[in-house]
Amino acid sequence: MSALDAHNIYQDFPILDQIINDEPLVYLDNAATTQKPQQVLDTLNDYYHKTNANVHRGVHTLAERATAAYEDSREKARQFINAKSTKEILFTRGTTTGLNWVARFAEEVLQKDDEVLISIMEHHSNVIPWQEACRKTGAKLVYAYLKDGQLDMADLQSKLSPKTKFVSVAHVSNVLGSIQPVKKIAELAHRVGAYMVVDGAQSAPHMIIDVQDLDCDFFAFSGHKMLGPTGIGVLYGKEELLNQMSPVEFGGEMIDFVYEQEATWKELPWKFEAGTPNIAGAITLGAAIDYLTNIGMDAVHAHEQELVNYVLPKLQVIDGLTVYGPQDPNQHMGVIAFNLDGLHPHDVATAVDYEGVAVRAGHHCAQPLITYLGIHSAVRASFYIYNTKEDCDKLVEAILKTKEFFNGTF
Amino acid sequence: MSALDAHNIYQDFPILDQIINDEPLVYLDNAATTQKPQQVLDTLNDYYHKTNANVHRGVHTLAERATAAYEDSREKARQFINAKSTKEILFTRGTTTGLNWVARFAEEVLQKDDEVLISIMEHHSNVIPWQEACRKTGAKLVYAYLKDGQLDMADLQSKLSPKTKFVSVAHVSNVLGSIQPVKKIAELAHRVGAYMVVDGAQSAPHMIIDVQDLDCDFFAFSGHKMLGPTGIGVLYGKEELLNQMSPVEFGGEMIDFVYEQEATWKELPWKFEAGTPNIAGAITLGAAIDYLTNIGMDAVHAHEQELVNYVLPKLQVIDGLTVYGPQDPNQHMGVIAFNLDGLHPHDVATAVDYEGVAVRAGHHCAQPLITYLGIHSAVRASFYIYNTKEDCDKLVEAILKTKEFFNGTF
Repeated sequence: MSALDAHNIYQDFPILDQIINDEPLVYLDNAATTQKPQQVLDTLNDYYHKTNANVHRGVHTLAERATAAYEDSREKARQFINAKSTKEILFTRGTTTGLNWVARFAEEVLQKDDEVLISIMEHHSNVIPWQEACRKTGAKLVYAYLKDGQLDMADLQSKLSPKTKFVSVAHVSNVLGSIQPVKKIAELAHRVGAYMVVDGAQSAPHMIIDVQDLDCDFFAFSGHKMLGPTGIGVLYGKEELLNQMSPVEFGGEMIDFVYEQEATWKELPWKFEAGTPNIAGAITLGAAIDYLTNIGMDAVHAHEQELVNYVLPKLQVIDGLTVYGPQDPNQHMGVIAFNLDGLHPHDVATAVDYEGVAVRAGHHCAQPLITYLGIHSAVRASFYIYNTKEDCDKLVEAILKTKEFFNGTF
Repeated sequence: MSALDAHNIYQDFPILDQIINDEPLVYLDNAATTQKPQQVLDTLNDYYHKTNANVHRGVHTLAERATAAYEDSREKARQFINAKSTKEILFTRGTTTGLNWVARFAEEVLQKDDEVLISIMEHHSNVIPWQEACRKTGAKLVYAYLKDGQLDMADLQSKLSPKTKFVSVAHVSNVLGSIQPVKKIAELAHRVGAYMVVDGAQSAPHMIIDVQDLDCDFFAFSGHKMLGPTGIGVLYGKEELLNQMSPVEFGGEMIDFVYEQEATWKELPWKFEAGTPNIAGAITLGAAIDYLTNIGMDAVHAHEQELVNYVLPKLQVIDGLTVYGPQDPNQHMGVIAFNLDGLHPHDVATAVDYEGVAVRAGHHCAQPLITYLGIHSAVRASFYIYNTKEDCDKLVEAILKTKEFFNGTF
């Protein structure tokens, strides 16, 4: 029996029931963004139909309701990642903003010749903010590389030293599909006195997250990759660190008092939330968390694992197809990047789109990795709770058709 | 005849038709956030039901549709403020983010003893970012004060000098309801070689904006204050300045190429848009712009003026009631802040809420102004296209009841 009933779940996603290029849509671009269930869209719609008001500043009824719903969502996010306190839950625009905020904190901490250690598989949002922080402070950006398609832990460990002030790693790679042992890495980082930062964009939607158990210092994730709306995400940070950190944006809501020449900040978490937040976004993210919690994140993980176990071997046997990342399905999350010999990934993505199958092609915002792998781009199929084994079959079939079509043509 | 049919427009706003504390809701908190018409909510809903995909990076059908709709919204925003090019339209989280970005640019430009000139009526989002830029660079933050409840232009002019590098002013005050002559101020600023920044949060929703005519260098506004969703806004900047400016957030989407140690940026406007943007927010803002454009921004302005002309005199004659800002209705936009002798503004707001009337009380994120006015807080009623003269009557009636209630009690 499956961990969850994907056919049943599929019914909750009205967007999936459509015809693309005369074929039923098979949406396999979930690592870029996921679709939203009707329950989540109902929350969004209800908010604007019944409650909409600006938060915190109002004493009228709608404003009180909106504020309660907004803060209630913060509590849901806290529970979702098992943070100690809602003071540790900052609403951001998404993972990118969260990681940028941590890198801004790093600018305050880093000194010349300090080091920041990241991996070669990082998404640009976990690369460029560190490049900038290092450029401004004279610190060095150091990379850990791969072994057998996964993070080389020996390499990472050899690059840790008392010079290391921040270690920042993707919990799950958005290209390789590999899971990094961030709990172990946090332990190693803390041993040399470094802060541990986790890019959780590709893990929080797919598995149980317990930031206390991981003992990471920061953890960033996005709403839109886990059934929530665009424009909202969460940055978790340990309370004592967030207290040390300066706010990154300045404006209304985050202040205690503003004099002409200076201002004092509110307490956590509001110190970081300048201006009108994405109120509807935060509240709707709460509904997405409810939906996922109702299924159970263990079941979400198990379902995706089942799909990978099913489809990865079928892809691996296609002649001329190279899968990147771990080859063992049990070490490979539901993100599968691959190439077909002699075919441009964009042509492959376009060709499978003719069969109704939506996959992504490109550098997946991970050019250092793509360069390291010796390629220019790759095709990527990524799965979620509404995908089925039939979707996997459709993908394999579309790839085989594509191969046949191009082999016949060229 | 009225400039627009507010009773008809009211029908488009499902949220307004509700009972609050046994009374029909009269929503007069529009300067904080406006309600959304069904047409705008339909666009939001349609996006998630039919189109949702991540933008720019995809070649599959949904991704192409989402990208087209997102960029189409940018063109709508361009037309809305008559910018020369969509390269000058940056999607932000809102006005606060836009002003913070400009202040970050100021950090690159300002030198010790340079000056930034703002007015005492600025919203915190147009105060604290400048305090921070000045603190980091050693520049001075200089204030222009008021005369007769309005910006004292002579004072402003006397504080302009070749030391002035940035002038930043609210187009419309969110407390005083005054309109600042930003075209004239831009001319004066440019004469001394300063950049002109306009906080358009309270003007863009209510009047025709032509950034080329104003000749401002930057103009920031928010979607949620003009019928759009939360979490989206626009920063306009002149193309040559945006080319000089460094990006503020770093991540996917905004790069040309990422090497291990450095990265190059995409062209405008994408250079500034790191990570997955608020796609649904931007597209839905486009629908809000369509809705407003369909009414006509001149009609929007005229309608609010008509309401102010109707209600301001009725408020001014209430014994013990003080209206802040210009006393002439023709110089007063649809934001009216006031106090009642001997009553705390929060008590007033709570009391009128019992009558179904939603107004705001507090410092309105303008503490330097509130301090300057010698008060601690104020009540604020603010109007929009769905408000009617009956709403004005309801407000006046609720205030009179409140007065009577408290006078009887204390």
